[in-house]
Amino acid sequence: MELQAKPNVGIAGATGAVGLEMLRVLEQRSFPAETVRVFASDRGEERRLRFRQHDLLVEPLTADALDGLDIVLFATSAELSRRYVPEVVRRGGIAVDNSREFRMVLAVPLIVPEVNAHALKEHRGIIANPNCSTIQMVQALRPLAERAGLKRVVAATYQSVSGTGLAAIEELEEQSTAVLSGGDASPDVYPKQIAFNCLPQIDVFDEMGDTREELKMIGETRKILELPGLPIAVTCVRVPVFRSHAIAVNVETERELGPDEARALLSGEPGIRVIDDPTEGIYPTQAETERTDETWVGRIRRDDSVQHGIWLWVVSDNLRKGAALNAVQIAERLIDADAR
Amino acid sequence: MELQAKPNVGIAGATGAVGLEMLRVLEQRSFPAETVRVFASDRGEERRLRFRQHDLLVEPLTADALDGLDIVLFATSAELSRRYVPEVVRRGGIAVDNSREFRMVLAVPLIVPEVNAHALKEHRGIIANPNCSTIQMVQALRPLAERAGLKRVVAATYQSVSGTGLAAIEELEEQSTAVLSGGDASPDVYPKQIAFNCLPQIDVFDEMGDTREELKMIGETRKILELPGLPIAVTCVRVPVFRSHAIAVNVETERELGPDEARALLSGEPGIRVIDDPTEGIYPTQAETERTDETWVGRIRRDDSVQHGIWLWVVSDNLRKGAALNAVQIAERLIDADAR
Repeated sequence: MELQAKPNVGIAGATGAVGLEMLRVLEQRSFPAETVRVFASDRGEERRLRFRQHDLLVEPLTADALDGLDIVLFATSAELSRRYVPEVVRRGGIAVDNSREFRMVLAVPLIVPEVNAHALKEHRGIIANPNCSTIQMVQALRPLAERAGLKRVVAATYQSVSGTGLAAIEELEEQSTAVLSGGDASPDVYPKQIAFNCLPQIDVFDEMGDTREELKMIGETRKILELPGLPIAVTCVRVPVFRSHAIAVNVETERELGPDEARALLSGEPGIRVIDDPTEGIYPTQAETERTDETWVGRIRRDDSVQHGIWLWVVSDNLRKGAALNAVQIAERLIDADAR
Repeated sequence: MELQAKPNVGIAGATGAVGLEMLRVLEQRSFPAETVRVFASDRGEERRLRFRQHDLLVEPLTADALDGLDIVLFATSAELSRRYVPEVVRRGGIAVDNSREFRMVLAVPLIVPEVNAHALKEHRGIIANPNCSTIQMVQALRPLAERAGLKRVVAATYQSVSGTGLAAIEELEEQSTAVLSGGDASPDVYPKQIAFNCLPQIDVFDEMGDTREELKMIGETRKILELPGLPIAVTCVRVPVFRSHAIAVNVETERELGPDEARALLSGEPGIRVIDDPTEGIYPTQAETERTDETWVGRIRRDDSVQHGIWLWVVSDNLRKGAALNAVQIAERLIDADAR
């Protein structure tokens, strides 16, 4: 199943944080769409979204509304994706789904174009977009895996609230304002205060005490890197930052890989920018790199606590490369594949 | 060198975040001081600090001013501690120093009373108070080390701005207010914006790319636990939180230690509170536990990526147990030792 050179494109969940970003990315990258239509599930007042000097009417998301679309980017909940992604495929279209729903399904490719584009050709109409934190971590891990082999990965995340959505951004704003004026922060979107606080909980807990976000990062990383037995340990933490995720990644490689070699290796990777001269104050942070397309890597240094240990500090905009940009890049590859 | 039952107490650096907290802790714990005097190095207008219904005049910190003090708690910079701590000892007093200056000196005990009080008896007038992050981490590690042996520790920190001092608290307030009103955050105390941002830099970098804070945590943990070869890897990160530090600690033990056993073990430790029922939303966060004396441990769970792996989420108020309280507890032990 391939895409024609100028496909008819849909965005499902277009009024959310990721959906709005998808529309922005399509425009910024001059995506060769014949038409673009936008859908939302919530019944509300009539809404229009600006796109290439036009106002697109937001249509209700229904199965029939998906008629005639060649590719639909889904920025919806797992529940909505479960319902509507198959409707796209049934109509002969391709769905790129950002929810967790199909990511771990064996027949569904889970794609980060710079990392495993080769897996795209096996798709059967559904392509899954990985979890935001997973995307940036596998971008940094893949070159290391190829060069030196991965023995074990231990990661701790610093994830922004935009990963939760627009309501979470508002909650951080409102709570922060309240706390700064001596008031109380009343949690609504999050289970506890997020203003000036870190929550070691992203998504729900399982009976072993892991969060679903942690299990996503482990399972998806293994699938994308095609290393089903890779030992990975993750703690995911929500931090009071609006946009972009950071991850402290501790990597144990099979073979020797010094910081200089890792730096050179990562510097040559498409989609990665290494900025790493800490004594000059040069390392990436979330606020400095938000709204950029790259995954930024800094603080590349040796960890002497194991034979071949290395630390990385990996930062990326969770709405861009972590979600919308990656989905659009997948769509671009589908057109390229057809052109070949 | 021992303390009399009602010593004359001094606080050097009494107008800083830690110094003010030391005064508060002395009062709250009804520390049996005969007299309390407070010192600051900065020349400014005359200042008084409230203590037990009295106003203490802040005296200039000079060598002669230290005459007649039995014990002085230092909340000063390494430079000031280097200069004035020996002056206390020369006058027959005992100094408990919160700076990094003497911590790694072989003859100076580095003490967390619940962890290694036994090392106190070897002091020669100087006792070092460990780094804030180190204190809470060793509290959680020590019982695990005793029961199951430590093979390797990998930690990532989430450290609040109060660890830097009062000016940093103001900077987070001011920058946050500016960002919320659409303005720019101009960094002063920190090298980059701290509002709604995480900085993977605490203290200065060395030529290997590690920060001094990371090296402190490694060296001090080894010294306190008396495990000079313990493999430890740390990334220290400043987060936009006012008070309390959190650490995601990944522990590989020598022998089997399940989460239930670790939970029971830590629950029985003085100074530690385990709150760990995540599916009920029960785990510690910084904002919820600030201004408490305990070190809080939650999210105790197995890490399957190694044979005997376990994750802990350790939270403690960096100004209380991480600094002022620990120093006062050391002073209390010195009196107890004398009473025995």
